[in-house]
Amino acid sequence: MHTCFHLDLAVGLQPLSDDEAVHVARVLRMKAGQSIRLVNGHGAEAMGRLVEVGKRNVFVEVEVVRREDQRPSGLILVVAPTKHTDRFEWLLEKATELGVEEVVPVWTQRCERKTEKHDRWDKVLVAATKQCQRLWKPTLHPACELNELHARIPSLKGRPGAVAHCMDQVEGVPTRVAWTSWMKGKPSAWLAIGPEGDFSAEEVQGLVQTGAAAVHLGELRLRTETAGIAAVAQFGSLL
Amino acid sequence: MHTCFHLDLAVGLQPLSDDEAVHVARVLRMKAGQSIRLVNGHGAEAMGRLVEVGKRNVFVEVEVVRREDQRPSGLILVVAPTKHTDRFEWLLEKATELGVEEVVPVWTQRCERKTEKHDRWDKVLVAATKQCQRLWKPTLHPACELNELHARIPSLKGRPGAVAHCMDQVEGVPTRVAWTSWMKGKPSAWLAIGPEGDFSAEEVQGLVQTGAAAVHLGELRLRTETAGIAAVAQFGSLL
Repeated sequence: MHTCFHLDLAVGLQPLSDDEAVHVARVLRMKAGQSIRLVNGHGAEAMGRLVEVGKRNVFVEVEVVRREDQRPSGLILVVAPTKHTDRFEWLLEKATELGVEEVVPVWTQRCERKTEKHDRWDKVLVAATKQCQRLWKPTLHPACELNELHARIPSLKGRPGAVAHCMDQVEGVPTRVAWTSWMKGKPSAWLAIGPEGDFSAEEVQGLVQTGAAAVHLGELRLRTETAGIAAVAQFGSLL
Repeated sequence: MHTCFHLDLAVGLQPLSDDEAVHVARVLRMKAGQSIRLVNGHGAEAMGRLVEVGKRNVFVEVEVVRREDQRPSGLILVVAPTKHTDRFEWLLEKATELGVEEVVPVWTQRCERKTEKHDRWDKVLVAATKQCQRLWKPTLHPACELNELHARIPSLKGRPGAVAHCMDQVEGVPTRVAWTSWMKGKPSAWLAIGPEGDFSAEEVQGLVQTGAAAVHLGELRLRTETAGIAAVAQFGSLL
């Protein structure tokens, strides 16, 4: 069954947004009478039936709305956007499918390009949320500088955190432990993953001083987006 | 340090292949005297120094070759190529970085497009092998029909296997167990992942009759390539 995004879910006649209406009417060529699923990305889903399918106006009769009050807690991924945005968008799509809770794009010393595409990135999250049938869209925070992370993102507070880096040793920082060992038994956590050129030693020291653990993601050298996808896949599976 | 692929690794003066020579000379603009790493994708790596960098001919003086005799065993991923080849190529890249041992593209009843791009796919594996610094390139088998899997792929023999599918119940097939539980403690295994429309019940029954376990990869509906990446990430991390 096709799923549409619809922010204000309620029983009764609901108009679809322009984007969703065009998709339902012109791309999928759905007809009045067909069943459709609506989600709002904030814990609610509705089952309905198309009652009018015009070129631009599409209405759905919603019969039942199901709500999940509490957002399931999980992993907050703090990650430097990749130089090529398609790699970052893949990470966003896959992380959504694999259950990430929040995403914080961060700018670090070695980010090659600092172009925030918030709306475009959010659309990727919406599409992936619909596709994988989760009820809660991951929160996408506005990008921030790494050294402002804790000030800008209050949801990190009180949650155990870790920084993944590729250096054998960093002065004043304990030797890295395996991410999969560190995260075991933690129902919620945050993890920071650096850019293509890794975090600087200073950045790792800064995060560790705020209480983060230093971790590694295995023997092989992972691309930023691979590291993010792997960490989310491993976290979700091990609770 | 830059890594080049070079099939016949030996001490002494080694010419780079045309592709690698062009990349080193024109793209990276490396000069004689610079250090370079060579890998053959079959367990050997060499450290060398560029001695001649011409427009088409590039020679490397190899001083030491290190060999790893035994290919580490791990996960064989049996997977239906996606309709859009870019999604399948992403899976190949990520699975290589995350340590997959072999990849078997399979054609199933619900594959929407059956176009094999063996050479192109193999290039993705070569590039990812160089990037992530593994010594063994994953084996890419020629695509085969699912019902010929065991006849065509002798390396599956004697190795525990599983089939991931999305159906609540399949007649004659035990209820699915979580992939991450099933795989625990298995140093090597194979896993079959279906196409966008899932395996048919008949295909799942066929695989289970050959001894495969029926597994699921969690609550959310994963795309084919996400399922593959997640399974490899989880397998590698949990041994």
